Amino acid sequence: MTPEHFTAVPLEKSYRLLNHGPTVLVSAAHDGVANVMAAAWACVLDFGQSPKVTVVLDKATYTRELLMASGEFALQLPPKALVTLTVGVGTDSAREVPDKLTKHGVQLFNAPGSTVPLVAGCVGWLICKRVPEPHNEQTYDLFIGEVVGAWADERVFRDGHWQFESASDDLRTLHHVAGGQFYAIGEPVRG
Amino acid sequence: MTPEHFTAVPLEKSYRLLNHGPTVLVSAAHDGVANVMAAAWACVLDFGQSPKVTVVLDKATYTRELLMASGEFALQLPPKALVTLTVGVGTDSAREVPDKLTKHGVQLFNAPGSTVPLVAGCVGWLICKRVPEPHNEQTYDLFIGEVVGAWADERVFRDGHWQFESASDDLRTLHHVAGGQFYAIGEPVRG
Repeated sequence: MTPEHFTAVPLEKSYRLLNHGPTVLVSAAHDGVANVMAAAWACVLDFGQSPKVTVVLDKATYTRELLMASGEFALQLPPKALVTLTVGVGTDSAREVPDKLTKHGVQLFNAPGSTVPLVAGCVGWLICKRVPEPHNEQTYDLFIGEVVGAWADERVFRDGHWQFESASDDLRTLHHVAGGQFYAIGEPVRG
Repeated sequence: MTPEHFTAVPLEKSYRLLNHGPTVLVSAAHDGVANVMAAAWACVLDFGQSPKVTVVLDKATYTRELLMASGEFALQLPPKALVTLTVGVGTDSAREVPDKLTKHGVQLFNAPGSTVPLVAGCVGWLICKRVPEPHNEQTYDLFIGEVVGAWADERVFRDGHWQFESASDDLRTLHHVAGGQFYAIGEPVRG
C-alpha cells in the first residue's frame, strides 16, 4: 500500500522535484535485501521526455552494490520531519549496522508495478534506471539514472510546483551543509 | 578590485558553498569577451584536497563556447537581491542580445591572479578548471570542473559554515524550481 498523499508526477515535470537542490535519500534493493543512504550530491541532468539525474555514490556504500546488482534505484526527498532519520541512515553503514533501517525507523513501500524500495514520509520520489557509464562510476563515483517514475506528496507539490508556503513547516525539504547541519527550504521568490 | 566582504574559503571547505543545492551563475571569458548564464544543475562531485563540481551546459550557450576555449569557468551563487539579474542572464542569450551583461546590470571583477570573470553581488564563488571529459560533454552536456579557488561573502559564510540566519534576508541563496519561480534558503535544522 502506498502512503496517503502519494501522487504521480508527470515525467516531464519530475525534474522540478530536484531542481531546487534538496538532499536526497538513495535506496536500492536486490535479492530481497534493501538499503537506504543519504546523499547531498544529486542533481538533474536532463528533463523533457527522457529525464535524467546524477548522483554520487561512494564505492564503500552498500546501496551502490545493490544498485549495481539490480540496475535500479530511487532518489527521494526527506522533509524536515525526517531530519533525524536522514542523519542516521547517512551515518551508519549497513555493512557495520545490518539493522540500520529498523534502528532509524525507516519504513519502506513500493510504487505500483515496481520493486524499488521507497521511504515513507518523504515528499518526493524518483525511480531511476541506471544508465551504465563505467568510466564515470569508477573514476568519479558518478552515477546517471533515467527517471522512469515520479511521485510527490500532494500536500507540498501540486500542479507541477512546490507549495511549501501553504503546508506544514515539517514538510519543507532539507538542504545539507555539513556534519548534520541543514537548512530547510524557505520562502518563495519570484524573478 | 574585489568587492567588500569577498573572503577566501579553504579549498577543502569549498564544497559547502554548493552542498545545499543553490542555483548558480556560470561565467567564462576568452580573448577579452566574457559571458554569464544561470544554471540550476550544478552539484558537488568531490571534496577534500581536489574538490570537483559538475555543471550542465547546453550546447547552444555562448558561455560553454568561452569555457571550451579558455578551459576555465566560475560558478557563483546569486542571493535573493540578484533574482532579477539571475532571471535576466538565464533568459537572454549573448548570441541574440550581445549587450546582455550591461542590460541586466552585471558587474564583473577578478580574483587576485585570475582572469575568470566573477559576478559582483554574489555570496559565493568557485573558480574551476575544466576536467576534459568529451563523452560526458557531448552526450549529456555535463562538465566537470576542478575547484582551484573559492571565496564567499563573509557576512553569510564564515568559519566554514553558512550563517544565513544572522544576515540580511537579501543574502539568502536562490533555489530555482521552474520559470522564474525560486525559493530562498530558509531556517537552520540540526539532525
